[in-house]
Amino acid sequence: MIHIKVLLVGKTKEAWLEEALYEYMKRLSPYIQFEFPIFKDEETLERALEKEKHVILLDPEGKRMTSEMFADWLFSEIEKGASHVSFAIGGPLGFSQKVREKYPLLSLSSLTFTHQMARLILLEQIFRAFEIKKGSHYHK
Amino acid sequence: MIHIKVLLVGKTKEAWLEEALYEYMKRLSPYIQFEFPIFKDEETLERALEKEKHVILLDPEGKRMTSEMFADWLFSEIEKGASHVSFAIGGPLGFSQKVREKYPLLSLSSLTFTHQMARLILLEQIFRAFEIKKGSHYHK
Repeated sequence: MIHIKVLLVGKTKEAWLEEALYEYMKRLSPYIQFEFPIFKDEETLERALEKEKHVILLDPEGKRMTSEMFADWLFSEIEKGASHVSFAIGGPLGFSQKVREKYPLLSLSSLTFTHQMARLILLEQIFRAFEIKKGSHYHK
Repeated sequence: MIHIKVLLVGKTKEAWLEEALYEYMKRLSPYIQFEFPIFKDEETLERALEKEKHVILLDPEGKRMTSEMFADWLFSEIEKGASHVSFAIGGPLGFSQKVREKYPLLSLSSLTFTHQMARLILLEQIFRAFEIKKGSHYHK
């Protein structure tokens, strides 16, 4: 079982978003146990990162990958023994420079998304990574 | 009133996605009238494009923009008099080379999304474009 944490600033407000996240969590439940800790601001979230083993920050200046690259990267981390992976999504202020220099940065797009939607996109990419690995028709 | 069509292959299956699309349509209803024609395959959709005035294809090889660039582009088109803009999202097969050479191509990300989710991301970017234009706090 792989443990994936998605650390986030601010609550999920929309009902449809909760439903969408739940749908992907359910599909991934045979392989992944998710946790979604919510923090009141970036500062509190950044302090919490110190306790995490394997941190990736979602950041506009981060590395841009294709879904295949993301799948390869995720599974190579898992094979190296990373059973706990933590993705952090900042709020409107973004992360501090200090934290941005400490951890690898990943960008979902050159477009700006709501941090709520970033969470959904990330979950769908993790689900897609498993489907790519299986060679299913989901990722044609 | 601006008319935006999003032409798509295949139905929206998920209830949460319908809800999310409805939410953005509602927020944009003072400015934009949306239409979402659904086609059974790429071929039928491509034929329908011939009747559209102003077509943009969502394509993995398309131009990548920031949200600010997208907003600038959208409003410059509107100011040039494009009161009807049609975005087309392909299905699993993608568009034919012939059609890809005919229209401008836009990419939402280097990642692959479901075409359903692409529709949601597109709507959120259109909403964001209006908020950028207004100078609101939505796009911080």
